[in-house]
Amino acid sequence: MRMAKMPTTKSWVAIPPSSHFSLANIPFGIISSAKDATRRPAIAIGEHVLDLAAFAQSGGFQKLPSFQYTATIVFTSSTLNSFAALGRPTHRTVRQYLQDVLSENTPYPEVLKDNSPLRDVALIPQAEVQNHLPLSIGDYTDFFAGRNHAFNVGTLFRGPQNALNPNYNHLPVAYHGRASSVVVSGIALHRPWGQVLLDPTADPKTPSFVPARRIDMELEMGMFVTKENTLGHPVPVGKAEDHIFGYVLMNDWSARDIQTWEYVPLGPFNAKNFGTTISPWVVLADALEPFRTEGLDNPNELQSYLRESRKENQYDIKLEVDLKTSDGDVTTITRTSSRNLLWSWPQMIAHHTAGGCNLRIGDLFGTGTISGSDPGTYGSILEQTKAGKQSIKLSGGGEQKFVQDGDTIIIRGVAGEIGSDLVGFGECAGTILPAIQYS
Amino acid sequence: MRMAKMPTTKSWVAIPPSSHFSLANIPFGIISSAKDATRRPAIAIGEHVLDLAAFAQSGGFQKLPSFQYTATIVFTSSTLNSFAALGRPTHRTVRQYLQDVLSENTPYPEVLKDNSPLRDVALIPQAEVQNHLPLSIGDYTDFFAGRNHAFNVGTLFRGPQNALNPNYNHLPVAYHGRASSVVVSGIALHRPWGQVLLDPTADPKTPSFVPARRIDMELEMGMFVTKENTLGHPVPVGKAEDHIFGYVLMNDWSARDIQTWEYVPLGPFNAKNFGTTISPWVVLADALEPFRTEGLDNPNELQSYLRESRKENQYDIKLEVDLKTSDGDVTTITRTSSRNLLWSWPQMIAHHTAGGCNLRIGDLFGTGTISGSDPGTYGSILEQTKAGKQSIKLSGGGEQKFVQDGDTIIIRGVAGEIGSDLVGFGECAGTILPAIQYS
Repeated sequence: MRMAKMPTTKSWVAIPPSSHFSLANIPFGIISSAKDATRRPAIAIGEHVLDLAAFAQSGGFQKLPSFQYTATIVFTSSTLNSFAALGRPTHRTVRQYLQDVLSENTPYPEVLKDNSPLRDVALIPQAEVQNHLPLSIGDYTDFFAGRNHAFNVGTLFRGPQNALNPNYNHLPVAYHGRASSVVVSGIALHRPWGQVLLDPTADPKTPSFVPARRIDMELEMGMFVTKENTLGHPVPVGKAEDHIFGYVLMNDWSARDIQTWEYVPLGPFNAKNFGTTISPWVVLADALEPFRTEGLDNPNELQSYLRESRKENQYDIKLEVDLKTSDGDVTTITRTSSRNLLWSWPQMIAHHTAGGCNLRIGDLFGTGTISGSDPGTYGSILEQTKAGKQSIKLSGGGEQKFVQDGDTIIIRGVAGEIGSDLVGFGECAGTILPAIQYS
Repeated sequence: MRMAKMPTTKSWVAIPPSSHFSLANIPFGIISSAKDATRRPAIAIGEHVLDLAAFAQSGGFQKLPSFQYTATIVFTSSTLNSFAALGRPTHRTVRQYLQDVLSENTPYPEVLKDNSPLRDVALIPQAEVQNHLPLSIGDYTDFFAGRNHAFNVGTLFRGPQNALNPNYNHLPVAYHGRASSVVVSGIALHRPWGQVLLDPTADPKTPSFVPARRIDMELEMGMFVTKENTLGHPVPVGKAEDHIFGYVLMNDWSARDIQTWEYVPLGPFNAKNFGTTISPWVVLADALEPFRTEGLDNPNELQSYLRESRKENQYDIKLEVDLKTSDGDVTTITRTSSRNLLWSWPQMIAHHTAGGCNLRIGDLFGTGTISGSDPGTYGSILEQTKAGKQSIKLSGGGEQKFVQDGDTIIIRGVAGEIGSDLVGFGECAGTILPAIQYS
């Protein structure tokens, strides 16, 4: 595992050392503010955002003439799809330019550093903006690439010998998820109603329609697609990186009791489609390059379409999950790394398109739940409670199983060490509200 | 079962008695033409289409003043989403108005019948237009509501006693499908590559990456959503009809050998996402009202959120499937009715949203495969060949299993009897091309 030791690069914007949004990051998102409700692109820098609509419209890209006109179009859009469509070489250029503009020793002080009228409108404290979904999502696909999670859950239901299905190490298992209900961090979700077996041993099996009792989180990473492929034309694994815009944290909420009853034979449906939460800032693929590492070892010889030349095909992003109860008690229930994956993003892309399926700009992929091997590293409550048989100990002394009404699940992810420039995601937070009154 | 016996209503446009596009139909689609490559809305009438962009822009809606301005906006769009968004009462009004305009005894002859300049540009032979996807699809959900199909397939793999899973009669089983690869009738698809077990009995199970050998069709009906619900707020079954724009025929292509290997535990993925074909003309929900009938009987008492007051919750649409081989041999391999469903569209909507999942305008639902109980009525080749153990007899004397390169699957669907006004869908046709060369 390669450790990222990069020197701190100073910005003329004050950036606390613990900030996820160092000059080495420059993640993109969509904001609105009290002064201007228009949804528009921005980047996060320290405890501020740079409003890219205001910046572009005021000539902020004057020192990047090839992009200046395009910027006024893509950065006045209400999503990042049109920026994503420009492709990775452009993202690289724009990110580098913004780093130059924000650097302490900027070659272009007149653009923003010494331009107080523009600074006053474009550099906004994060506390004053609201985040929105960064891209309009075409299709959402969720993988099952966290092998420790697959093993842990398989062990609970089938024992360790049969924990992994025969296909698991051969292909990146995945299912099509629901795009409409992907929400940005901070949007609360109601506990879903659904059919569950209150007595799973009864014969015949008879479901009840009730608010789900086993609401779980799933700690995942998400990826947005930046380049489409034509229907019928697979993306080779060696070219798949070109199709990656960037990454977010993801909580793929799951109602385990609904899932148990509904998922045979076509997979999860209502158990998952009531909501999926993602973090608001898309960390560009380039920003994570210094944090490459190896993932989990695959004992199988892979089919050629999945074979990568690079061994360091994962990232070492430290992931944590907090469970915050309605009385304010906060317990960190998971600490793990995003390297706990069997399949890489390029492998997922190659597999998804292997039969010709077309990806579109703005499509969202999820890794599936990321877990380590040991207690304290599990990315789902299902694993933490051994399918509801044990309780989670809360820091305040209480204990509980699964997510209760009013609980908030907060995922954090960050690459790097304090003392170097951190590249982080901020928070992916979601609260479960009580079930609605069903008429 | 109520038989639809409606008198023929004459149009001043010549409509052959066998046409699916009688004056009682008025289905909506998206066209382009050699003279004008712009994608734009149209309706089908007999062997013509009425170009709604040209019609609206030339004052065609002058006798429907409340809609005249809106028409110039929604009918110059490249999809039907903005028209769908207007809601069913508006669709009803517009369809009725177009029926009036096209009727032999039209009260508005000056609008089109006697307006030869507009007729010349707006009334185009169908042979001169190309159809495109009628709506931009947000999410695509495929159900499993054809109980005969579920029973037939379950019997093949588990025997008749265990054919249906315990949940089957309790809830409309469904999975999230892939929206990006839904194509309109006429678009050819390449045979997908994928992982398959060439020797399913080998131990350990070792897949090969090859062009799929068991390409199947699935005869389905599709439905487009016309009204959204807010995330967290279910659609009551009694109000679900308001959310239905209209219907299409659907072929949910399936690679059975890919499916067998990949589908545990999360359901079908690459086996289905290489393409789904739909018919181009959306038959509005109102046009099918005269053809209501009862569906399959459910032995269970339903949960309240699935209980409908109306027993006639299906349609009697005669469905046929032709298999046309590359040498021109045409064999009708399926004849059945769309009434062979356990769950209705309102029940599917109520279930899909029961946990709060939000539907969006342009979302597509599929019924799942529709089969009768007897040979000759099966909606998939899997059933027709008893999972590949028997062959299909072709009309030219040959026989084959599954879809061969160059084969075309053509689905037709029509309600009503010749001698009355038919309400039909035209054709949903797709050809399987050879697999691409995989580098």
